[in-house]
Amino acid sequence: MFTQLNKKLTLTSSFKTAPNIGLIKYWGKWNEKEIIPLNTNIGVTLNPKDIFTTTTLTLNPESHKNELLINGKDFAISNRIERLFNIFREQIQQSKQLTCNRYKNSPSDKLLGQLIPDIDKYGIRVESNNSFPTGSGLASSSSGLSALALCLQDILKTNIDVRYLSRIGSGSACRCLYGNFVLFPGVQLNNLDKCDQETINLESKRCLPYEIQNSRWLKDKVSIVILTDTHQGQKDVLSKDGMKMTWETSKLIQGRVRQFVEQHIQELQTALENQDFNKVMEIIIKDSNQFHATCMDTYPPLLYLNDFSRQIIQMVHIYNRNAKNIVGYTFDAGAHAVLLIHNDELLSFKNFLANAQNLFTKSKYIIPSQQFWTSIGDGPINQN
Amino acid sequence: MFTQLNKKLTLTSSFKTAPNIGLIKYWGKWNEKEIIPLNTNIGVTLNPKDIFTTTTLTLNPESHKNELLINGKDFAISNRIERLFNIFREQIQQSKQLTCNRYKNSPSDKLLGQLIPDIDKYGIRVESNNSFPTGSGLASSSSGLSALALCLQDILKTNIDVRYLSRIGSGSACRCLYGNFVLFPGVQLNNLDKCDQETINLESKRCLPYEIQNSRWLKDKVSIVILTDTHQGQKDVLSKDGMKMTWETSKLIQGRVRQFVEQHIQELQTALENQDFNKVMEIIIKDSNQFHATCMDTYPPLLYLNDFSRQIIQMVHIYNRNAKNIVGYTFDAGAHAVLLIHNDELLSFKNFLANAQNLFTKSKYIIPSQQFWTSIGDGPINQN
Repeated sequence: MFTQLNKKLTLTSSFKTAPNIGLIKYWGKWNEKEIIPLNTNIGVTLNPKDIFTTTTLTLNPESHKNELLINGKDFAISNRIERLFNIFREQIQQSKQLTCNRYKNSPSDKLLGQLIPDIDKYGIRVESNNSFPTGSGLASSSSGLSALALCLQDILKTNIDVRYLSRIGSGSACRCLYGNFVLFPGVQLNNLDKCDQETINLESKRCLPYEIQNSRWLKDKVSIVILTDTHQGQKDVLSKDGMKMTWETSKLIQGRVRQFVEQHIQELQTALENQDFNKVMEIIIKDSNQFHATCMDTYPPLLYLNDFSRQIIQMVHIYNRNAKNIVGYTFDAGAHAVLLIHNDELLSFKNFLANAQNLFTKSKYIIPSQQFWTSIGDGPINQN
Repeated sequence: MFTQLNKKLTLTSSFKTAPNIGLIKYWGKWNEKEIIPLNTNIGVTLNPKDIFTTTTLTLNPESHKNELLINGKDFAISNRIERLFNIFREQIQQSKQLTCNRYKNSPSDKLLGQLIPDIDKYGIRVESNNSFPTGSGLASSSSGLSALALCLQDILKTNIDVRYLSRIGSGSACRCLYGNFVLFPGVQLNNLDKCDQETINLESKRCLPYEIQNSRWLKDKVSIVILTDTHQGQKDVLSKDGMKMTWETSKLIQGRVRQFVEQHIQELQTALENQDFNKVMEIIIKDSNQFHATCMDTYPPLLYLNDFSRQIIQMVHIYNRNAKNIVGYTFDAGAHAVLLIHNDELLSFKNFLANAQNLFTKSKYIIPSQQFWTSIGDGPINQN
């Protein structure tokens, strides 16, 4: 978007994105630099009307400094964001060398690098604001980084793949680019042990996310609640460190990556195709637990689930004994729970949740004091 | 032992046994009836001077009633104990048919069934007293049942294998029959899918425990502490039910049973042979975590470890960063921890433990309020 601001040319773009919650979990990279996951993974995008990150990118001719503001506070620019900025500048450089504009949806008849030759010297300012607290257990960085990728592509208007840009920002971030259930392909198993440059390039092109269209029937059937453990004490091991540790030390991860995740992916896709709600939930539950099992099999073990998480798990399984439509749950690298509830069960489950303390010894009950309610989303919203 | 009590012949025997703590864990039976474990397992026997069960068996001609008293309270006789009593009576029946006494260590020149033909009608009274509380997380039934097997064999003096009797009582109980590290062989993997009667009989004869003599060097080097979670709320799923659920629903258990446990067994035996203390502890830690990983991969998941357990695990790994001799830990189907500490580290670790609250957020710290200290034991003590 071009605007005249104080008689200076300003370039800006803004997107609103919602987090995508991993359901068939991604844990471990086949290629660190290109962020190619070891296994195919599936996530569900939340509704950006309820839970969102608004990210605005501004190119500033007045400054050469890059800036990153999250919720109004200055943050250091990470290596990954730096890499996105470098790709942006490379694209500008390349566009200068093109003699004609092949891209019809360009904001003018020229590419950006031809229009403003010194734009690669402009400072890049990224402002990201979350509608949800940082400690809520929702991966704010993932929705923010996919929005950043959308902004960069929106300004560049070259044919660089926004899915690639987003993946470079953060592995699972690229799943935020679509609504509903999103599949992010992992490396093909038979290539697992090859890592020459050609294989990496091929896998990099192949490993880009897409929406699972068969999942759309779920959109109007499911409510989602994030239950946040406000009492959490210990700092968890970060995902990017944890997944390396698991890959290096767990024996069980081998069976998961080489066989069981693929089974879960197949089973989930079949269940989605058959519109088998309970089967979908069952696979989601099993994959979350299997993921945390491999975390526990890590040395030293990664113990993301605490007593808060345990109580939610126990509670859901008690509810499910008598439920027509079972409640699904999933936990990422933290204690916070994401529950998927059939709308037909909503009243009944809310009532059950409100009385959940009766299921536990009083002194041991941990109240899920923060609840974020939402639904399945349609994907990013262009704010321009 | 024969005594004259009120001019009536009384037969009695008494043994003192200590629990054996699983280190390479046993979870799942290949054959339910014969209690043949799916995988080979190793445990360490505690010192009966500190932690013990005293079990006395008395045959009472005055009564046909069988009785089981644990810590002075009447308990129903379980199917497994009933089966032990039946085997006892079968042995009596068989001994009546023998024309001569082939067993030189018999209490008389005749077998029991020949000496007292109606002894199979006598009531059997079992009295078992634990030196440790039932809720301490120590498997009191396992030490009690191995003592019962010893008593039965002591009275019978036939050539029935006490290891078999003990195993029938309770799978891991038979490991209490020896001191130091005890290996209880599981079914041979290549037989896993065969279960004709001949195979079962062969495996039943093969799957009997023995002491790992290479483990004796550890005896004077190791202190053991059981840390008990006195705040525990929920009742856990019983081992015998849990292991069935895991076998039926976990995908990860397959890799563990068919491959990884065997690796741990080999690695542990090599480490014992090399007297490599840290390696021994590392394998113990890894096997405990892998076992709990397969519990978590069960549907619904078995969550034996709680925040108390998590803190102990985190604490031990913090200690181990700077320890010359690392501390080992293991958890059975419950939240209670068993730690193995090199005696050279004892003062240092006790000091660390006393100040452990500094490692955690104050409000989240769970005090390990009960500590049972012991060492490695030599096996059962004959009280007769």
